[in-house]
Amino acid sequence: MSEPKYGLVAVGNALVDVLTLAGEDFIAAQEKSHGMKRGAMSLIEEARATELYAAMGPGVEVSGGSAGNTMAGFASFGGKGAYIGKVADDQLGAVFRHDMQAQGVDFVTPPLAGGPATGRCLILVTPDGQRTMNTYLGAATELGPQDINPDVVASARITYLEGYLYDKDQAKSAFKYAAEIAHDAGHKVALTLSDPFCVGRHRDDFHYLVENHVDILFANEEEIKALYQTASFDDAIAKVSGHCEVAVVTRGSKGALVIAAGRQIAVRAEPVDRVVDTTGAGDQYAAGFLYGYVSALPLEICGRLGALAAREVIGHMGPRPETKYADLLKVMPGLKLTPAA
Amino acid sequence: MSEPKYGLVAVGNALVDVLTLAGEDFIAAQEKSHGMKRGAMSLIEEARATELYAAMGPGVEVSGGSAGNTMAGFASFGGKGAYIGKVADDQLGAVFRHDMQAQGVDFVTPPLAGGPATGRCLILVTPDGQRTMNTYLGAATELGPQDINPDVVASARITYLEGYLYDKDQAKSAFKYAAEIAHDAGHKVALTLSDPFCVGRHRDDFHYLVENHVDILFANEEEIKALYQTASFDDAIAKVSGHCEVAVVTRGSKGALVIAAGRQIAVRAEPVDRVVDTTGAGDQYAAGFLYGYVSALPLEICGRLGALAAREVIGHMGPRPETKYADLLKVMPGLKLTPAA
Repeated sequence: MSEPKYGLVAVGNALVDVLTLAGEDFIAAQEKSHGMKRGAMSLIEEARATELYAAMGPGVEVSGGSAGNTMAGFASFGGKGAYIGKVADDQLGAVFRHDMQAQGVDFVTPPLAGGPATGRCLILVTPDGQRTMNTYLGAATELGPQDINPDVVASARITYLEGYLYDKDQAKSAFKYAAEIAHDAGHKVALTLSDPFCVGRHRDDFHYLVENHVDILFANEEEIKALYQTASFDDAIAKVSGHCEVAVVTRGSKGALVIAAGRQIAVRAEPVDRVVDTTGAGDQYAAGFLYGYVSALPLEICGRLGALAAREVIGHMGPRPETKYADLLKVMPGLKLTPAA
Repeated sequence: MSEPKYGLVAVGNALVDVLTLAGEDFIAAQEKSHGMKRGAMSLIEEARATELYAAMGPGVEVSGGSAGNTMAGFASFGGKGAYIGKVADDQLGAVFRHDMQAQGVDFVTPPLAGGPATGRCLILVTPDGQRTMNTYLGAATELGPQDINPDVVASARITYLEGYLYDKDQAKSAFKYAAEIAHDAGHKVALTLSDPFCVGRHRDDFHYLVENHVDILFANEEEIKALYQTASFDDAIAKVSGHCEVAVVTRGSKGALVIAAGRQIAVRAEPVDRVVDTTGAGDQYAAGFLYGYVSALPLEICGRLGALAAREVIGHMGPRPETKYADLLKVMPGLKLTPAA
């Protein structure tokens, strides 16, 4: 088998983030009036997006989307990757495409013509740095199996799928199709559970996926508990350990737990001066971990790279690197990297 | 005379900023190949904007435009203001409009239909926090006298004009028309010189304006020296002092000098932990000063408010407030504000 062209290919909802600072009062009022979920992601329709945008403060626009963020982080470490996701043929779509390509990621999906606008995630960042997300999927919902490029997926060591895709049927099909191609080519499939509410909406599907299609699972504490419908973290960890090759469970400031081959490896969080905006923290944790993984580094080091990347992204507004993650490798003297595709 | 509705109305180039981090090598190469001017603003055409954007790293989009930034800062202090500037009827134009209105500023200019796209300023931020700006004016060039709303201008204590407007004939006419309305209504006209190269291109016009139409002048050290074609700062200060009621000259980390009624008031810069991005520093200095001025505060305090606002904006990427400037007033106990329109 020839060397894979890509270390990582990601499939996700292509979204532009619109970030604004918001007070707790604003969130509380929106929770009451519109079912916004503090700290989580809510799907919204176009009319509601227009209404919420009008009520929001001044914003910063930056390319986002969970798997897109992970891909940007992976490339910032020096990894070679590709991205599959759907934007429209409009200004924000051009911004998303530029940012992917400028980060060194091959964005292989053509834009949608004549449909909804590029999707947007309206993100309210509270004074504690927590983000509350409201997603209008727009053109991203049009992603389907026809957008999965078999050559690209077959030539990646890992195909990384975003749990958020699991809200639309076309995207679910794309998701399964990509997983099949990856496995047929002898490569790995990774999944992030994305959001506890998303897990709650599609629990049976996620169980099936984790047990049958997923080699590397990413989740945070709430998501893994939601998957196994338990209030006990230990219980959830015990349940996941037999179901996939590697499970990576992040716990915010408590660090992360990597579960693999019967072992549990605790990884500490990196100390942070000030949490500005947690948007993208989980995405960048995955980026660091996966970069280490495709570089054949020990799982402890993979976890540490994830923690370093997460620390960088929560120190500023926005979900993608503002520094070069390859520089984070320098803090680990003696680290020997095998070349990552 | 009834109480003016607005404290400040600003007329400027309505632009969306696209900010990216850039190394010194990149700037040096672009200076050599395309005449980019490190630390200054260069006007570019659409084809060059497309080419430069493709060569740039991943970006952050945020509403900008010098006078627009000042207006956002003025509103963040709690001032009531309006903005006149031209965007297109496109996604970035909608972003600009949203951000103005969400900041509490009345954006009174209708969008341009069927012309060029909303203007963009491609900003390369070097590791020292300095910004190098490359502006494709787009729809902003279509601003003309027909966009000056006489009622709005006549109802503002101060009409603030951006020197950058002085590169296009239509905008120059708009500029002079606005100044006439303001003076006819018995109000003040403020001008920022904006950029030493812009001053160099239109020195005679600027001299005429400063001597005949401008009550309050803003400039930095380079701009005031460019205006009077002198290498001596003291010489430039001596020359400006007789030509307008108030001159405010900023000097970066050396603070600012306010010249009024034969007095020179030195204002120290506020200490800064780390300069992240100087984009908007001068604009926010003007915002703080003008908020103090319309609130009838002593010139020393006006200068200090400018310095506090400038400190906030250079601590993060982007040219507009990420905190509420009204909170900066709290660091000055005993401050008595008369209500600012």
